Amino acid sequence: MSRLEQQLQFCLEIDKEKQIKRQTLVSDGSRQEDDAEHAWHLAIMAMILREHANEDIDLLRVMSMVLIHDLVEVYAGDTYAYDTEGLKTQKEREMKAAKRLYGILPKDQEEEFMNLWLEFEEEKTPESKFAHTLDNFQPAMLNDATLGSKWREHQVHLSQILKRNEHTKDGSQTLWDYQVEHIIQPNVENGNIKSDE
Amino acid sequence: MSRLEQQLQFCLEIDKEKQIKRQTLVSDGSRQEDDAEHAWHLAIMAMILREHANEDIDLLRVMSMVLIHDLVEVYAGDTYAYDTEGLKTQKEREMKAAKRLYGILPKDQEEEFMNLWLEFEEEKTPESKFAHTLDNFQPAMLNDATLGSKWREHQVHLSQILKRNEHTKDGSQTLWDYQVEHIIQPNVENGNIKSDE
Repeated sequence: MSRLEQQLQFCLEIDKEKQIKRQTLVSDGSRQEDDAEHAWHLAIMAMILREHANEDIDLLRVMSMVLIHDLVEVYAGDTYAYDTEGLKTQKEREMKAAKRLYGILPKDQEEEFMNLWLEFEEEKTPESKFAHTLDNFQPAMLNDATLGSKWREHQVHLSQILKRNEHTKDGSQTLWDYQVEHIIQPNVENGNIKSDE
Repeated sequence: MSRLEQQLQFCLEIDKEKQIKRQTLVSDGSRQEDDAEHAWHLAIMAMILREHANEDIDLLRVMSMVLIHDLVEVYAGDTYAYDTEGLKTQKEREMKAAKRLYGILPKDQEEEFMNLWLEFEEEKTPESKFAHTLDNFQPAMLNDATLGSKWREHQVHLSQILKRNEHTKDGSQTLWDYQVEHIIQPNVENGNIKSDE
């Protein structure tokens, strides 16, 4: 197979990400969002919100990272943030999926994509920290816009949200402060998020 | 309203792009693709296929352009490539939509997004030429993968496809050559695309 054919096979294979449903609803509440839509949303939010990152970031790297961060779910499926059982096997399932999926690409691009995904997962660079901030902020924004129905459905507790968002501030203190004040607190007060007392 | 609030209002408003259906099916043929999924697909294809651009390109600019190129459809709706009536009013409807949508952003970002969109529309820079190549190649790839059912449904003729793709080669001769040889010709031969004779 030629280099171009390998690349195009990959481009067609990742189309399956459009079929991976998330636990978040789109903003009019009519249906679940899928992974491709989520990644698109994060990439534009990176363009708009980059000035709020704690550190200087390479925007191209953040955008590339958020665009590809869920590709492994094409084979590994989506693991809901509060699915305790699923989370136990998530890392192993996703690494297997990454090898299979990125293996379709020519060798140099396989390495490029694998490294980009691992950088996201390890959450150590300014770019991956900011990417995680966006990845946590966007579903909170949509849950808030859809009147907290997904928090209610899963009976999510404040402590779970705080644990999940342990590092959200590491990418952007500004976005985390906004999330606490304008999204989390009001939804605890109105009962959409269960208080732990 | 603070700068951050304006930015977040925009981030929420563009969520509506997930509801704009295109005439292309996703690769398993189960449903129509939406604009957000399409834009996500183009941005990753830009990452993978950048080496095939005719000219040196700024990848960040291409990705930014394809991610936002259909945002105006949030208000203006999708205009099918072969909808003669819709195409007559498309430019005017989309300019009105662009002013309304980008007007939600802080002034500097309003200008940045408007300029990026206009650059895409004008198709003069290497980045916008390559963005258009991807925008034409991706639906052809999906139409081919879904056995040409959308070409058949709309009885699309070869001459319409060639007219629509008049400038596809301007962004990438390599991708256009591939599209002709591996997508267009076989689908004319098997009757999915109507020959003009």
